[in-house]
Amino acid sequence: MFESAALPHDLSKEDFERIEPRLREDLLDAQFDLLDAKQKSILVLINGSDGAGKGELLDRLYEWLDPHHLDTLSYFAPSSDERKRPTYWRFWRDMPARGRIGVVLGSWYHPALDGRARGLIDEAAFTQALNEINEFETMLAAEGVMLLKLWLYLPEKEARRRLKNLLRADGSRKRPVVIEWNHIDTKKERKRLNQAGLEMADITSTGQAPWHVVAGDNDGYRDIAAGRLLLDALRRAGAETLPARRAGEKVRKSKAAPKPEPPLKTPSVIAALDLTQSLDPDAYREELRRHQHALTRITTARSFRDRGLVVVMEGNDAAGKGGAILRIREALDPRAFRVHGVGAPSDEERAHPYLWRFWRKLPMRGQTAIFDRSWYGRVLVERVEGFCSQSDWLRAYHEIKDFERQLERADYTVVKLWLAISKEEQLRRFELREDTPVKRYKITPEDWRNRDKWDDYERAVNDMVNLTSTSHAPWTLVEANDKYFARVKVLRTIVEALEG
Amino acid sequence: MFESAALPHDLSKEDFERIEPRLREDLLDAQFDLLDAKQKSILVLINGSDGAGKGELLDRLYEWLDPHHLDTLSYFAPSSDERKRPTYWRFWRDMPARGRIGVVLGSWYHPALDGRARGLIDEAAFTQALNEINEFETMLAAEGVMLLKLWLYLPEKEARRRLKNLLRADGSRKRPVVIEWNHIDTKKERKRLNQAGLEMADITSTGQAPWHVVAGDNDGYRDIAAGRLLLDALRRAGAETLPARRAGEKVRKSKAAPKPEPPLKTPSVIAALDLTQSLDPDAYREELRRHQHALTRITTARSFRDRGLVVVMEGNDAAGKGGAILRIREALDPRAFRVHGVGAPSDEERAHPYLWRFWRKLPMRGQTAIFDRSWYGRVLVERVEGFCSQSDWLRAYHEIKDFERQLERADYTVVKLWLAISKEEQLRRFELREDTPVKRYKITPEDWRNRDKWDDYERAVNDMVNLTSTSHAPWTLVEANDKYFARVKVLRTIVEALEG
Repeated sequence: MFESAALPHDLSKEDFERIEPRLREDLLDAQFDLLDAKQKSILVLINGSDGAGKGELLDRLYEWLDPHHLDTLSYFAPSSDERKRPTYWRFWRDMPARGRIGVVLGSWYHPALDGRARGLIDEAAFTQALNEINEFETMLAAEGVMLLKLWLYLPEKEARRRLKNLLRADGSRKRPVVIEWNHIDTKKERKRLNQAGLEMADITSTGQAPWHVVAGDNDGYRDIAAGRLLLDALRRAGAETLPARRAGEKVRKSKAAPKPEPPLKTPSVIAALDLTQSLDPDAYREELRRHQHALTRITTARSFRDRGLVVVMEGNDAAGKGGAILRIREALDPRAFRVHGVGAPSDEERAHPYLWRFWRKLPMRGQTAIFDRSWYGRVLVERVEGFCSQSDWLRAYHEIKDFERQLERADYTVVKLWLAISKEEQLRRFELREDTPVKRYKITPEDWRNRDKWDDYERAVNDMVNLTSTSHAPWTLVEANDKYFARVKVLRTIVEALEG
Repeated sequence: MFESAALPHDLSKEDFERIEPRLREDLLDAQFDLLDAKQKSILVLINGSDGAGKGELLDRLYEWLDPHHLDTLSYFAPSSDERKRPTYWRFWRDMPARGRIGVVLGSWYHPALDGRARGLIDEAAFTQALNEINEFETMLAAEGVMLLKLWLYLPEKEARRRLKNLLRADGSRKRPVVIEWNHIDTKKERKRLNQAGLEMADITSTGQAPWHVVAGDNDGYRDIAAGRLLLDALRRAGAETLPARRAGEKVRKSKAAPKPEPPLKTPSVIAALDLTQSLDPDAYREELRRHQHALTRITTARSFRDRGLVVVMEGNDAAGKGGAILRIREALDPRAFRVHGVGAPSDEERAHPYLWRFWRKLPMRGQTAIFDRSWYGRVLVERVEGFCSQSDWLRAYHEIKDFERQLERADYTVVKLWLAISKEEQLRRFELREDTPVKRYKITPEDWRNRDKWDDYERAVNDMVNLTSTSHAPWTLVEANDKYFARVKVLRTIVEALEG
């Protein structure tokens, strides 16, 4: 969830000043389109760590938008009036009318997260509360209320440093801060809050109302990123509204089609990898043997009969997936595993729901399946190449997590590996393949075409890692410029997951 | 849920023989359209009481449709193969390809219902299982798998009689029967199964995949009703598919637009009322006073401060809602109740989600709100007059139940009353109003127009009672041709609900 938000973000003052005026103008235009159409309203939920700039972002939205058509919906502990009514009454009461934008602080997520962190409600009640939130949000969407759910993220240490810096000697604060979590103060409660937050993101990131993580370490970056998400939401509201307008109806002013803005430089979990890591041949042989022995021991033990192992192997073209899989195979009982190479779907597979082709290849308990490429194709190749619609791959993040949760509940261990090489290393390997007769079959014109979309793929991988790394099935990024290093890390990751 | 299914159904042999050939032809046409388009598949879930004709309906579908493109998906206790994989694996494995129809016996609902009936899982786990089913079905819908969920209903006594009739002296059965619930044999388990069934219908009747109750007391009626539901589903699948076909693509054969079939004569809970019931003036005064005293006592007691009372008063025009409300008012502390007359929504209300206008009128705990017409307008007047789209009122059943569940959880008592008068009695009252100067304001041209749609309204009321009567907020139908009888029944219903 927070993989790339945890990396340092940067937006220079010059870049901010170049980007901001146009964004502001676009936001105002879009806000008035929303107001004129009076078909949709938008709720912007600002949640996240204290100190990550929730209040500052709110101020910025008031600066950028026309405040006459903007409502702040702010919730603390319920008042006596609110306590005398059903829980959601106060959210209903404040619901903005069509055409308006509401900014929500301390939303319907707060009581559930808070209750779970403090141990006031158990796991089942928490899940139930999240399901009720989904019902509520589904209904809002059907009724024309769009949701933009922002989670402002700042690493805990940095957040605490910031809050401390705002304190004067007399205990007062230099400027107002939105403090929502200061009563969560024991280590145990903080841990439970973090766990609950991940679960919340899992269950309530639906196709129609996903969570967006916004990094809070750089003010300018934070506000531009949030502003662009809002602009996107406003434009989608406008697009969905258009058919509802009568033809020939006057539109406020004619505008040229907006030119696409250059994307913000987002730090990517891939770019943050140290690809120079390597292993010398002796250490490789030694460590490989050790992990292979461990893998053999675990997968042939009696206790493994009640478990299953699913390995997802993804990575850049020529990153060495095949070689790594070979080293896993060597350690497994050949009767108890299958490797599934996943390419374009067959006719029969195309005639079924997307996940069907993977369900039918699931191993029995006691067995292992290695997927050489996997269901993640939906949010990688299908997204980048446009093989499915945006709404299809957007809902896939949620569906995939649901699928993997079912595997976990059925006692499968799911290990997800991304083998990453640099663009230069890939070029070297491609050329080597073309020059080596026995490897020539491994390189196709498609590989070269994919390479042209390197940046698109990197963005897709980054989103995938952020949106589908869960506590029970996390992604492991494997630095694979050095094959020895990569293979050992692959084996070690699998062994540790099985021992976990 | 089963209010009108529990009434006797009738379809004469001649009617069946007149209706069947055309339905069969239409079904075949629609099946081949589905097959040609290859965009959607349909799963028909046949669930319900043993003895209600699950197997017979399956046989009929095989008789009516082309069996080459029909799959039976039948699930018993999991095989050893199935037990070794995640729970849903077997449903995935059997998923029909686009273009095909699957008929499911013993679906994914069975384990949850069975586990709950036998006390193997608790309330929270059951609700969680239902939420997981919703996730699964949402994903199927997004992936082009339509669901038609049928619940075949037969009153318990009748079902048992039928099963017994099928037994030969030697214990064998005269013909095969789909027996799914015979191990639920204690009274406690049966009660839990019924309760779980209602909860299931509540939570999993979503806008996109609602449950349809089909009465099982008359074979011909059952099959025609189910067949028409399937035809409707097939045609909707076709309509959703059309844009996906390329223009100019050859369609199997040209057909004239289908003429609408006359609706099946459905027994209505309204028509089943005995409207001749009446009360003489003395008994009326005596009983009214008694119930009013009780209502005063309960609503002014200290314990009522932690509760709330919401009375929904609906009924035919001129059924006497106003007079009944007056008798409730008389018993209440005037500082602690409000009557909300609900008419056409204001501009402000129209600019918000549908339920907003009712949320804002909710009483605090300790108080009473009487709604003279209510949120049920969505599925009554808005449905009949076309003020909202079909998908809007279809999802409203689910949303309304969710709303009322929130009220119940917040300790409100919800009493829902439908005051029913006969068409003749309404005419008499309308004419009386027109002739009485002080009552003339009570009758408008709109009342006469509504009267023209008497049958449409009756159908809407019948659906409303079937789809929104829950254990915590049931509908009470009040026979209101006699005002005395009606008022006493209204008061008594409220008092009994509060004493509950």
